[in-house]
Amino acid sequence: MPTLRIAVVGASGYSGEELVRLVSRHPELQLTAITSRSSAGRPVGSVIPGLPASLEKLTFADIAPADLAGHADAFFLALPHGVAAEYAVPLRKAGKVVIDLSADFRLKSPEIYKEFYGHDHPAPELLKESVYALPELHRDAIKKTDLVACPGCYPTSILLALAPALKNGLIDPGSIVINSLSGVSGAGKKADVSLLFAELNESMKAYSVPKHRHLSEIEQELSLLAAQNVVVTFIPHLVPLTRGMITTISAKVTRSLADKEVESLYAKYYADEPFVALKTDGTLPEVKRVVRSNLIEIATRLDARTGRLLLFSAIDNLGKGAAAQAVQALNVRFGFEETMGLGA
Amino acid sequence: MPTLRIAVVGASGYSGEELVRLVSRHPELQLTAITSRSSAGRPVGSVIPGLPASLEKLTFADIAPADLAGHADAFFLALPHGVAAEYAVPLRKAGKVVIDLSADFRLKSPEIYKEFYGHDHPAPELLKESVYALPELHRDAIKKTDLVACPGCYPTSILLALAPALKNGLIDPGSIVINSLSGVSGAGKKADVSLLFAELNESMKAYSVPKHRHLSEIEQELSLLAAQNVVVTFIPHLVPLTRGMITTISAKVTRSLADKEVESLYAKYYADEPFVALKTDGTLPEVKRVVRSNLIEIATRLDARTGRLLLFSAIDNLGKGAAAQAVQALNVRFGFEETMGLGA
Amino acid sequence: MPTLRIAVVGASGYSGEELVRLVSRHPELQLTAITSRSSAGRPVGSVIPGLPASLEKLTFADIAPADLAGHADAFFLALPHGVAAEYAVPLRKAGKVVIDLSADFRLKSPEIYKEFYGHDHPAPELLKESVYALPELHRDAIKKTDLVACPGCYPTSILLALAPALKNGLIDPGSIVINSLSGVSGAGKKADVSLLFAELNESMKAYSVPKHRHLSEIEQELSLLAAQNVVVTFIPHLVPLTRGMITTISAKVTRSLADKEVESLYAKYYADEPFVALKTDGTLPEVKRVVRSNLIEIATRLDARTGRLLLFSAIDNLGKGAAAQAVQALNVRFGFEETMGLGA
Amino acid sequence: MPTLRIAVVGASGYSGEELVRLVSRHPELQLTAITSRSSAGRPVGSVIPGLPASLEKLTFADIAPADLAGHADAFFLALPHGVAAEYAVPLRKAGKVVIDLSADFRLKSPEIYKEFYGHDHPAPELLKESVYALPELHRDAIKKTDLVACPGCYPTSILLALAPALKNGLIDPGSIVINSLSGVSGAGKKADVSLLFAELNESMKAYSVPKHRHLSEIEQELSLLAAQNVVVTFIPHLVPLTRGMITTISAKVTRSLADKEVESLYAKYYADEPFVALKTDGTLPEVKRVVRSNLIEIATRLDARTGRLLLFSAIDNLGKGAAAQAVQALNVRFGFEETMGLGA
Repeated sequence: MPTLRIAVVGASGYSGEELVRLVSRHPELQLTAITSRSSAGRPVGSVIPGLPASLEKLTFADIAPADLAGHADAFFLALPHGVAAEYAVPLRKAGKVVIDLSADFRLKSPEIYKEFYGHDHPAPELLKESVYALPELHRDAIKKTDLVACPGCYPTSILLALAPALKNGLIDPGSIVINSLSGVSGAGKKADVSLLFAELNESMKAYSVPKHRHLSEIEQELSLLAAQNVVVTFIPHLVPLTRGMITTISAKVTRSLADKEVESLYAKYYADEPFVALKTDGTLPEVKRVVRSNLIEIATRLDARTGRLLLFSAIDNLGKGAAAQAVQALNVRFGFEETMGLGA
Repeated sequence: MPTLRIAVVGASGYSGEELVRLVSRHPELQLTAITSRSSAGRPVGSVIPGLPASLEKLTFADIAPADLAGHADAFFLALPHGVAAEYAVPLRKAGKVVIDLSADFRLKSPEIYKEFYGHDHPAPELLKESVYALPELHRDAIKKTDLVACPGCYPTSILLALAPALKNGLIDPGSIVINSLSGVSGAGKKADVSLLFAELNESMKAYSVPKHRHLSEIEQELSLLAAQNVVVTFIPHLVPLTRGMITTISAKVTRSLADKEVESLYAKYYADEPFVALKTDGTLPEVKRVVRSNLIEIATRLDARTGRLLLFSAIDNLGKGAAAQAVQALNVRFGFEETMGLGA
Repeated sequence: MPTLRIAVVGASGYSGEELVRLVSRHPELQLTAITSRSSAGRPVGSVIPGLPASLEKLTFADIAPADLAGHADAFFLALPHGVAAEYAVPLRKAGKVVIDLSADFRLKSPEIYKEFYGHDHPAPELLKESVYALPELHRDAIKKTDLVACPGCYPTSILLALAPALKNGLIDPGSIVINSLSGVSGAGKKADVSLLFAELNESMKAYSVPKHRHLSEIEQELSLLAAQNVVVTFIPHLVPLTRGMITTISAKVTRSLADKEVESLYAKYYADEPFVALKTDGTLPEVKRVVRSNLIEIATRLDARTGRLLLFSAIDNLGKGAAAQAVQALNVRFGFEETMGLGA
Repeated sequence: MPTLRIAVVGASGYSGEELVRLVSRHPELQLTAITSRSSAGRPVGSVIPGLPASLEKLTFADIAPADLAGHADAFFLALPHGVAAEYAVPLRKAGKVVIDLSADFRLKSPEIYKEFYGHDHPAPELLKESVYALPELHRDAIKKTDLVACPGCYPTSILLALAPALKNGLIDPGSIVINSLSGVSGAGKKADVSLLFAELNESMKAYSVPKHRHLSEIEQELSLLAAQNVVVTFIPHLVPLTRGMITTISAKVTRSLADKEVESLYAKYYADEPFVALKTDGTLPEVKRVVRSNLIEIATRLDARTGRLLLFSAIDNLGKGAAAQAVQALNVRFGFEETMGLGA
């Protein structure tokens, strides 16, 4: 019998939809509120496919931030940055656990927030208690926080690929170059001509260079891993598929290395991680093997000709990159089996 | 009235098809032979869409290399590497002009050919006369050769993006990292399960790292441009669209630079090039603007935070990356207007 | 040297874009005005890919209907229905030739217009002079009108498939059932969540049954062909590709027929039509052979088991279904070679 | 604890893959053999994404038909027609339960099998015991058979849409016209140029008219439903998505009807069916709501203008059209909860 009442706030976007699907299948969770300003009053099943019949007839609610606390024990916020804080403040005041998928509580520094997001941080007083909720890096801290700040999709695919290399001092942090390819659901469900099928299909491009907003959290976490200030080049691309993300990283090695040695260090680093799949069978990470899961595939290759280590990862931007990882973080926070409801 | 008789050898592959389409619209060219072993005897129009009615009823011929020379004045070879040389040797003996789209005559060194292609070069004696036919780099040499070796799609998208930066000494050649994204027609028309719609759709991946075959010609030409030996990291990706290629390059700058200065140097370098479109309007290169054309879009961006220059290009892998560029090279070789038949 | 000055009104939608591309390649046409309310002031080349360099730097104008007449000799209206009439009225008053791609002047009956479009006809006085501009059916009338009403995409694919069967009395008009599949560019370039890539990709559905607006013109023209009142079942579907339309029709035969006899009657009916490609090689019409052209592929099959004639057609909904057919109609109206600028 | 040992024979095709995924999640089933001739010896996880870690390291076996019986209690055959019978015969001799996804045991008449499949039936003696396993039509018979013949994807989408109308005498069986649209996984995982991404993407077509093989089982079952011999027109189409099927049917009504009356009869007919979702909210069946499920969406619309009833259905061709429906049939046969392991 479910033990935890859950609200999904902003449930009609792509991450919100996926959260509703995942929560509905999680044995310890009970969906007690599904809110959406734009879809208020509509049956949930008419917007979100793949729900159990019991949920389909529920309607989206439009509940003001101040009135929300009583509706659940834990709250997933699948809202735009800036808006999430409006909900997090009263919910935290009411002592509720907030699992935020926006960028509002990922950065420790309100100054860097302002630099990258263009406006003052809406609730800087909450930054002290928030935890950057990449479970593979900050599992213990997640267990103790009530403000769980889920990483962005790009950062997830990048940080998990780089962590073992940086922690083991294999690469020069100043030489890191990151290229990522994202499916279009990552751009959200916005009525915008640039996101139309006929605009994106059979095309692709790089965008938001050289300073995509996710750089701020990427560099914050890389700096922690490397124990020094890290600045990287990051180039995101938009490609014509709905879900999926590939990240490819190169960096100069700091010493002579063999492929097997790198693989062995990665295997050791991720030995107990249920959602990290290290590819050592000669294939490289591929979207179709991770889509609709919480998996991240990671592979490493030495480029002996140039003295660079190449790192590859694949995730589902809505899975490990958003909703599934948020459920993983909730599992960690509430002491459930970490894989519960995530099909691994 | 057409003045030059043309054969397309290997016309049922994707590059061959595109060549047939382009030649059929070129006012100075007359298609006198269309060969294909696998489609021999079938009407050309049943395999290649978009042809003028006059060509649709022609059938593919299967003509042995030794018997081919009489059928045309100039010969496009759209054949696998290794096979192309079998045709080039007798055609050159007969004094014919060969425009080869395979990798057989792109490299100056038979040793590097063997290193990258895994077998001895099939006709090393022809390497002295062949010209690496990127018109923007080797226009004058193309005019004088009878063995025109058209560049690969990846190299085209890479070399034209890097040439002005290297020639002007803006970047450190040892720091070049290249990521490319290719549509699946680049993998050819092979009955291979890995190329099925249901295998590639809604997926993507990096492949052929760290030593894709195209690296050999990329480094040969970059070394010429930089006047020093250049070794680079190159990571190709397969993405789910039929036609198109995006290349993204980063390299350390050698001195303090401003965006406008770089744009101005690129503008000067490509001032007279009809097929190079420099994007200085704030957008980055995009496949949909170059597909089914001989255009390459190029943009530059300084990443001041990391001291890197970012270079972006977009081409159609079957257009500027293969068939259209081959027609451009033919125009150069035979003294036609360089844009003739190429819609620019 | 171009002889006719052309305006494309509403040039930033998908049909408008395609018209600009086609007009720019037509040897007798000169683009003197490109208007768009939503893109006014932007360079044409930033919105429409694939234009000659000479056009790319032009900017979209926003010209009021009353001020437009002086800007060109002939005017393509690529506007929503209802809006087109606002432009057509003053242009016709000024004696200009109007080639309208909207539904405003396709129907002879203002009552049926109101039934299907939900409001009074905006300019019923012009219906007397307008001609339903399917050249294969009304070529002579097109030559004499100054108000050319181009058919919709569905009607084009349906009427040309049915015309020979109805004219020859091969089928019972009361038994006609039509299924059509349209690429998503047919839904237009609207900022609507339902048209996003992530909503349409990997999905499909029927829609607008049982009374899609195009039924009105389909039945008007079928009734003329059959010389009796014809009512049909028409079911459109939305499928995940950008451009292309497949129509499949079945109807009871009125007498015993053989496949060859039907093919021969179709061949005779379309003997002189440059854009009708009858498939008699065993294949059925296919989008990839007609996309980006003004072709319509048509095939016929008898279903002896059920006594039905099956009819198949393929067009590009933006080509023969919209912009290219509009240029064909202009060629007819102004006495140019009918294939001029249309690559056939 | 799982109670039934399961073999999936032919597990590397698309239906076989999906079966492995579904069986691995079913609480009462234990996978004891996964066979594939083409992938024999390879790890299952390298071919089939999305498996539990416990299964990924298993390898595909290649077990001869005669040696298979000991490996499991029940056997899913995901094999080409003709081949399935080679396995079914010895398995049935050994007293095992066979759940066949091929066409080999769907038809009651070996003569009709020969007419549609072009060769003698390979095991006509087994036709007496086999049951056409559409649970919504033949649930009781499935419970009692050891040779479960799962319907094809087209027939599933067609028969469930038509059954209530035929059973209630709403339509004239002689007037039925069926159009279906299938995603390309329905064509199987064959190394065939016609199935390449670059061949199918951005195209579509009708095919296999007028006598697709599935017509044989469609008409067999429609005749049973109508209690008279039924012959129909059926036109399948191939469209560019991986998974999904839309069927659209029209037929003359036999009497005056209202939309609500038809909906009410359908609701009554399918009142207890867990996998039939009747759409009465104004929308029509849509692939994205049924993909990766065992659901069929069905909607009805009267076309008052033509006196036809329009029927619409959507399934996943690999779900309700193949693997998921096979698991549903197994659940029925072995007395498990019918929705077990199927996520409804």
